[in-house]
Amino acid sequence: MADLAERTDPSATMTDAAEARLDRMLEAATAAGLDAALITSDESIAYLTGFKPMQLERFFGVVVRPDRSAVIVPALDRGQIDGAPERLDPISYGAESDGIPQLAEALAGATKVGVEEDHIIYARTSALERHGFELAAAGGLVMGLRVQKDAAEIERIRVACELVQEGLRRAFEWLVPGVVEQALNARVESFLREQGATDAHPLILFGENAANPHGNPGPRELKNGDVVCADLSACLDGYWGDLTRCATVGPASDWAKKTWQVVFDAQQAANAAAQPGASGRDVDAAQRKIIEAASDLGACLHGAGHAIGLSIHEPPFLVPRWTDPLPEGAVLTIEPGLYKAGVGGIRLEDDVVVRPGGPEILSNLPLELTEVGA
Amino acid sequence: MADLAERTDPSATMTDAAEARLDRMLEAATAAGLDAALITSDESIAYLTGFKPMQLERFFGVVVRPDRSAVIVPALDRGQIDGAPERLDPISYGAESDGIPQLAEALAGATKVGVEEDHIIYARTSALERHGFELAAAGGLVMGLRVQKDAAEIERIRVACELVQEGLRRAFEWLVPGVVEQALNARVESFLREQGATDAHPLILFGENAANPHGNPGPRELKNGDVVCADLSACLDGYWGDLTRCATVGPASDWAKKTWQVVFDAQQAANAAAQPGASGRDVDAAQRKIIEAASDLGACLHGAGHAIGLSIHEPPFLVPRWTDPLPEGAVLTIEPGLYKAGVGGIRLEDDVVVRPGGPEILSNLPLELTEVGA
Repeated sequence: MADLAERTDPSATMTDAAEARLDRMLEAATAAGLDAALITSDESIAYLTGFKPMQLERFFGVVVRPDRSAVIVPALDRGQIDGAPERLDPISYGAESDGIPQLAEALAGATKVGVEEDHIIYARTSALERHGFELAAAGGLVMGLRVQKDAAEIERIRVACELVQEGLRRAFEWLVPGVVEQALNARVESFLREQGATDAHPLILFGENAANPHGNPGPRELKNGDVVCADLSACLDGYWGDLTRCATVGPASDWAKKTWQVVFDAQQAANAAAQPGASGRDVDAAQRKIIEAASDLGACLHGAGHAIGLSIHEPPFLVPRWTDPLPEGAVLTIEPGLYKAGVGGIRLEDDVVVRPGGPEILSNLPLELTEVGA
Repeated sequence: MADLAERTDPSATMTDAAEARLDRMLEAATAAGLDAALITSDESIAYLTGFKPMQLERFFGVVVRPDRSAVIVPALDRGQIDGAPERLDPISYGAESDGIPQLAEALAGATKVGVEEDHIIYARTSALERHGFELAAAGGLVMGLRVQKDAAEIERIRVACELVQEGLRRAFEWLVPGVVEQALNARVESFLREQGATDAHPLILFGENAANPHGNPGPRELKNGDVVCADLSACLDGYWGDLTRCATVGPASDWAKKTWQVVFDAQQAANAAAQPGASGRDVDAAQRKIIEAASDLGACLHGAGHAIGLSIHEPPFLVPRWTDPLPEGAVLTIEPGLYKAGVGGIRLEDDVVVRPGGPEILSNLPLELTEVGA
């Protein structure tokens, strides 16, 4: 892995890309009949401006409109937007404001305003409605741009996956009977962050804890016979990687071997289904059919995966309700799993790019069920 | 600091407290003329149920109403709510749903529904409005409960502050010329997480970077003459601690000495103003007067602080627009700062409990400007 100091400053290339993205955002908003689009999520702001805000309770937003676009930040974050594209008027507001008057001013003259409906909060939408703006859900417009990753973005996800792979290799080395689940997760997280991850979520679960895909690591010690489900994600230079591999302490049980094979088959089937034009529902159905047929081994508790990029989880989601076609260049996690209460869970996860000839897999860590020292 | 294994399971005591909190929540909602309250933020759900969800894109909520209350989670998180108070109907939904039909069912018969307006997103409020519910901002009701910490909560914040103090001590030991800002922050974060923090945000900024209160740690090395502003926060057993101390590499410059004294005076004045019945505006004014009078030394870029507890930043905020009276038992960060572009910044931050005789300070780390090895 590259040393921190060797990495180029990501904000420089992001600002170049941001100009073209603002053009496309304006085009999409205009085509949707909007007078303006209001972008509020950290990741979409990063996508469109090249700067990633540190958003707490204070309002951050980017207004995209034909005449004058703007970026609005709290005064104490004013220093962060110097590198934002020049066409964005930099507007900041002090501690006496909640930012809404400044936002209303930046939107003045517009009637129909698109918002990121999966991000903007009711306090702000109800305030905008009181100012007379008509709001419309427009998250799909910005996500419609974000879903198709460019080469630089795919490369960043690949580099994030490299870090996660190295994290998984270390985690498996550290899987020795007696190690405490919570301590192991902390150690892996430390490793990922020391390697430059700005955010990281290891979820390495032991034995029966692994039967809950969102379980919390606890004080339980690893013991002989445990199955271990190790799901690691890390954000590096703004982009996420997210992989899962499994291990057994000592020889795999019959349940673990059979379950791994079913999950492996399901992952292969979902990979094969991840074609341009297929939907999230299609990719999910490919794995679900296989997982659900193995109900004697455990339960199917989640969909096939989700897109990944600036956010760890972003649309499209690979679930039955998602019927939009996947574009070429989408990056998806493919992560079927099978869970048996009281016993454990097996999940296999890779990040793949949707390509016409079949998906490009951004990781190369073997999928095999690893046997760790008993 | 206690070993991870020695800590008691926090969920047990939280579930006991949750029953009484649900009673108070229902009382507050009824008094406000609401038919139901819909609680959606991780922290408020934790407060009312004793379980802290891992909320991603899927809907989580608690419905509090006179006849039947409920907790609604994705199917894959069903395992986490076994310990929730019994009066809450456990409702889960599968991958085919976005959770809104199940929520609408749990709210059926209610008209006026209070929501956490600083958390719930437009996609969900607009869906609820399409179902015919009338929404009202009710975040103040649950925050009105959360603001008054009980003894167990204060103790948890104190323990989180102990960890943060230890993190600051380590950080200052590791402040040697040549250390890279980003690497130092990662090392401190690792330390905090290895000690059990489930979330941690070190923000240790060197020299001119410290002039931006929300700057990002970068590849810059520490050098002689730098001022260092070290703001550390960590979440332990669900509760946050957040402290800031400053250092200079080698003897402090005149600017650093004078600025530290002004910030110290401002913090003392804000502490003295943090009385039951005073407002966020009052506490802010006490520090702002002193900081703004020193404009030759730098700028006043933010308010006096914010409440802290299950969230790192929660209302009340100590800013000019916050005029509600502070109750006894509120826990606040008091953190004035003074920032000079190109030179640096000094901030001092403690977490204090509002008490009639004057605030109780939850940390005991000296406030002095520390001189580290040149």
